[in-house]
Amino acid sequence: MKNGIETRLYVNSSLNGVEIFSLKQKQVHYLKNVLRLGLGDEVALFNGYDGEWRAKIIKVARQSADLCIVEQTREQSDEPDVWLAFAPIKRNRINFTVQKATELGVMLLWPVITHRTIVNRINIKRMRSNVIEASEQSNRLTIPKVCELDNFNNLIDSWPIDRAMIVANETGGTPIAEMISMDVDFSMKKVGFLIGPEGGFAKLELELLSKLPFAKHVSLGKRLLCADTSALAVLAIWQALLFCSLNRHN
Amino acid sequence: MKNGIETRLYVNSSLNGVEIFSLKQKQVHYLKNVLRLGLGDEVALFNGYDGEWRAKIIKVARQSADLCIVEQTREQSDEPDVWLAFAPIKRNRINFTVQKATELGVMLLWPVITHRTIVNRINIKRMRSNVIEASEQSNRLTIPKVCELDNFNNLIDSWPIDRAMIVANETGGTPIAEMISMDVDFSMKKVGFLIGPEGGFAKLELELLSKLPFAKHVSLGKRLLCADTSALAVLAIWQALLFCSLNRHN
Repeated sequence: MKNGIETRLYVNSSLNGVEIFSLKQKQVHYLKNVLRLGLGDEVALFNGYDGEWRAKIIKVARQSADLCIVEQTREQSDEPDVWLAFAPIKRNRINFTVQKATELGVMLLWPVITHRTIVNRINIKRMRSNVIEASEQSNRLTIPKVCELDNFNNLIDSWPIDRAMIVANETGGTPIAEMISMDVDFSMKKVGFLIGPEGGFAKLELELLSKLPFAKHVSLGKRLLCADTSALAVLAIWQALLFCSLNRHN
Repeated sequence: MKNGIETRLYVNSSLNGVEIFSLKQKQVHYLKNVLRLGLGDEVALFNGYDGEWRAKIIKVARQSADLCIVEQTREQSDEPDVWLAFAPIKRNRINFTVQKATELGVMLLWPVITHRTIVNRINIKRMRSNVIEASEQSNRLTIPKVCELDNFNNLIDSWPIDRAMIVANETGGTPIAEMISMDVDFSMKKVGFLIGPEGGFAKLELELLSKLPFAKHVSLGKRLLCADTSALAVLAIWQALLFCSLNRHN
């Protein structure tokens, strides 16, 4: 149970130096009918760059609501910079992946169609509202960016070279925990994980990946994991090792 | 893509030294209508103690099917001994937890009602069929045991004292990766994870847990994780560190 304010709301505009915050119509509906809040209730607002602010509902009308900003409760702080590139899977499981990746601190979600990807469409609007909701509920101060559905060639062509790409490769590789901890400075570097589709990467894709200077291939062990399980596993493992590393340095 | 036989079937009787294996009626239905297999098709059988055996369907009738056991493809091997005790959550999310915990190698699932648990019933029959299916699909040679729904006091009274209980405690604790790796012999020891409900453990429960000599309290980091995310995270982290440790010793 969180102490203090339990309800958090992501807003898409400035909070710093604002006294009265007016919610947009869509959020008024969300506030009243989903969050079930009304006059006098408090809510924590965040926008991804101004930290978190306590606010009190001072006016509620049919299509509008005003909040009085009381005080800043948390400052914006740096968050670990981890990306997740993944082959989309069936709808309900994508929602699950996206929600839990958000809980686990992902900063960017990059859905990618690979050779063996079965699903070739995603509902990006839903994905984006899912990450907002998951961010609100997991106490994050940021919202992960959700990229448009992309293809494999574009992924490897546009991947920034200063960011390590850790590929969960079912054909073998260094144990993931070993690969991550090999680099004593890993907690200060940009990283992204690439998870393939249920059928794995095609031979040509593996060859292309093996030629990328920033790609590292890891194994998650002997067991066969579903793509969505792998996605969460890599993020959980990375976060745990990061937490351990940061704790050691403090 | 697995080479060789893709379809695996758990059977509940001896395979070693058996020439003709007759499927029970319920499994005949599963074989024909779910797995869509027929005369001449091959399937891999396992029972949790005889390893894995390749078998060919030699006879299919309305309510019966016979398989000819061809050869043993894998020997039974020891698997890491990790338990998961968890407060049950809503139905569809329990199924997800149970499936993915199975993929991640859990040996025993212990659902426990705690003070703040909202759900007080589980469909154990469904949980058991879910673990069987997940075991078949994740290439396991064992099926996790699913315990009946229990209560918190009974959990701590009957927890075997030779098994470490790692409690994912949102009120603080050692970083989980640090706690696990502290013990250089951890890969050879029995362990279980306890995950509380969404609202966390009650004060009295935390006090009781703090008095248990075999309980260790860990933190999963600053972020707020759903109970089902925590359950998977702990298993993924433990498996990754185990894999790393075993790889180092080979």
